[in-house]
Amino acid sequence: MAKKRKSHYHADMLSVEEAREKILAEFNPLNQVKINLNDSLGCVISKDIISNISVPPWNNSAMDGYAVVKEDVNKATEKKMVYLEVIEEISAGELPKKSIKSGQSARIMTGAPIPKGASAVVPFEDTDELTSKSPKLIGIKIDVAKFENIRKKGEDISQGDLIIKNGIEITPAIIGVLASIGFSQIHTYRRPKIGILSTGNELLEPGEKIEEGKIFNSNTFSVSSMSKLFGAKPIIQTHSLDTIEDLENKLNKFESVDLIVTSAGVSKGDYDVVKDVLSKNGDMNFWSVNMRPAKPLAFGKIKISGRDIPLLGLPGNPVSAMIAFEKFGRYAIDKMMGKKVKHRPIIKAILKEDIHNYDGRRLYARVKVEKSSNSKIIATPLKNQSSGVLTSMFLSNGLAICPSGTDILNKGQEIDVEMFGWNEEISEIIN
Amino acid sequence: MAKKRKSHYHADMLSVEEAREKILAEFNPLNQVKINLNDSLGCVISKDIISNISVPPWNNSAMDGYAVVKEDVNKATEKKMVYLEVIEEISAGELPKKSIKSGQSARIMTGAPIPKGASAVVPFEDTDELTSKSPKLIGIKIDVAKFENIRKKGEDISQGDLIIKNGIEITPAIIGVLASIGFSQIHTYRRPKIGILSTGNELLEPGEKIEEGKIFNSNTFSVSSMSKLFGAKPIIQTHSLDTIEDLENKLNKFESVDLIVTSAGVSKGDYDVVKDVLSKNGDMNFWSVNMRPAKPLAFGKIKISGRDIPLLGLPGNPVSAMIAFEKFGRYAIDKMMGKKVKHRPIIKAILKEDIHNYDGRRLYARVKVEKSSNSKIIATPLKNQSSGVLTSMFLSNGLAICPSGTDILNKGQEIDVEMFGWNEEISEIIN
Repeated sequence: MAKKRKSHYHADMLSVEEAREKILAEFNPLNQVKINLNDSLGCVISKDIISNISVPPWNNSAMDGYAVVKEDVNKATEKKMVYLEVIEEISAGELPKKSIKSGQSARIMTGAPIPKGASAVVPFEDTDELTSKSPKLIGIKIDVAKFENIRKKGEDISQGDLIIKNGIEITPAIIGVLASIGFSQIHTYRRPKIGILSTGNELLEPGEKIEEGKIFNSNTFSVSSMSKLFGAKPIIQTHSLDTIEDLENKLNKFESVDLIVTSAGVSKGDYDVVKDVLSKNGDMNFWSVNMRPAKPLAFGKIKISGRDIPLLGLPGNPVSAMIAFEKFGRYAIDKMMGKKVKHRPIIKAILKEDIHNYDGRRLYARVKVEKSSNSKIIATPLKNQSSGVLTSMFLSNGLAICPSGTDILNKGQEIDVEMFGWNEEISEIIN
Repeated sequence: MAKKRKSHYHADMLSVEEAREKILAEFNPLNQVKINLNDSLGCVISKDIISNISVPPWNNSAMDGYAVVKEDVNKATEKKMVYLEVIEEISAGELPKKSIKSGQSARIMTGAPIPKGASAVVPFEDTDELTSKSPKLIGIKIDVAKFENIRKKGEDISQGDLIIKNGIEITPAIIGVLASIGFSQIHTYRRPKIGILSTGNELLEPGEKIEEGKIFNSNTFSVSSMSKLFGAKPIIQTHSLDTIEDLENKLNKFESVDLIVTSAGVSKGDYDVVKDVLSKNGDMNFWSVNMRPAKPLAFGKIKISGRDIPLLGLPGNPVSAMIAFEKFGRYAIDKMMGKKVKHRPIIKAILKEDIHNYDGRRLYARVKVEKSSNSKIIATPLKNQSSGVLTSMFLSNGLAICPSGTDILNKGQEIDVEMFGWNEEISEIIN
């Protein structure tokens, strides 16, 4: 067998980090939009949130019970109950009509405002309510602490508090908090629209009949679902043929998107129409990135209806396209959404089989990370690391990182694995 | 101060696990539906996927280069090139018209089918293409391995392979693979529709003007966004007043949902209309669950337009509602979607401050887990553990578990923390 070529010198290549930096320099958080709270999950708050109200807005009862003057019940016990006059009943949503004086109480329901004068609530089960003969008189069986079972005004939020800062990603808890201060809409950075276009005369769309010499377009589907997972809105065009006319026609439909993502036709060695069209209509760079898979990458801007729109050209191989989109597209989307840079979690694992790195690029080898029976974390490389083998992307759960210039990661060695993070794999591994 | 009551005997309470088991016994994966691939992210495949084609469907070139007979180039070097006749050019999407014999080659582009007779591809850069004077003759500068730079038919998927099993959750990689075998639609378990209704006379909807004695409805928003995060479709009604008429009217609008989730009015101690209406119209259980927060829980079925629809009644306190929905609602949604039971990841952490457990229930205390400067994982309990303090749900990232019957978790002790898992907190901690 022919010897694989080695070349540890890659002066003409950009590192992954350099390429990413150049790309991110061209993006900023998008404009602010006011959206409905129910549509905001995963977006980023673009304006500090200051509460106009206290939460709760007034002292209210945490239990169904009796609002009392704390000192009245100091000596109450089950055997020696303290009897109090019941002067009114207050339901949630109602206002107390009377003040409580020593010797008095109010029957009060959870959430109802505490009447003036009352300083604690005694729950029903600590009274003689079930056996009492008079609704006007209640026997108290226990002592309670001052303010016991009272939710105090502002215990959650005080009026005027800065409660959530610009830049925070919206979770269900934040949605709940925003509702609790009366917000039905919220300022966020706009979700980016991502125009997605695969190119190639050999492509068929899924659902079409297979033809000799052709393959189904998968990049559109993997990349658009990744976009969606990252919080963006994919705008899909059916694949373009490798003709100037079809390619320009399809690209022109992306006049309102924030980023165009193409796949195929960006290798330095390629002499094809994609590079010609992109170069003619824009200011494009065709890079070699010091990584495997996904060495070829194009990035720049193209002019569509007078707008300069960023364009990321992914390699055509399905695995390369996904990994390049994860390494570059995800970061661009996060930045447009106002998110902080979030790298994937890296786990230490023991390598089960050697990983060879033939040409000295930084190798991202697909591995399956699992916890062994003796609780060690083991990474098994998938047998076929070809960038055409897309099934390897769902059979693996992470990428073992073989540094640039390192020829081999040895079986038994502890290595770094960057987890994909879109399955539940991490929880399975750390538990 | 009055002494807190302790009671380690909870014979009338269900454990969290018992309650969950009773709930899950009433759910099954929903019916199968055929949906567009682009809408399937996060759903579960309901039918084994067998491929009708091989991927790739035929041997094709992994590079732009020259298809050759491997043995012809055995001795090729940069100094002593082997010259081959170029008999045709094959682009991606085209079919080869000729077979390659010894001494011949075809110029071939990435993705194009390998012509008969060829057994390897030599990349452009390892030929004299740039300096050659004749397009009919190419100088080969290197030896290549047999099948080098050829993606072999079926190297990813063989025709007839069972490639994805029923029960697998759909990720971007799976969407790509399904597209690659020509699927534009896919059978999945239907996403559940969750009817969401808060109850209480004291509630206002966010956006309304604050009124004395009232508070904003937050449970609808936190619970519906959790439903969405879990993959379900929330169907929201504005909150119901505590009247039979309004409550029945609102519930009747949920005739087509798969699960109704209400909040408030389910405590054993409550004498209110929610329990009356649910009991009158259905077969409901009102439980005490041995946990804090979220002890009261209702579960059963209610009849709407002749259908028996499961109903989960959450406590009204905003923190309790979220935690009960996480502990019970999430599992029900996962089961309806056909997902495997997925518990949250549990991390070991050193406790920064004592956690007191006053009444012996299993306590889920909100904590913020962080990595300290000396790489220890530290859990700091939020100061106010009141179930009304919703901000604590976004200021924390996990729940420290204090087992039932344990009075205290001590500062400095190693404890279990169940992470919420909806932020990036885990990657920040394990890195």
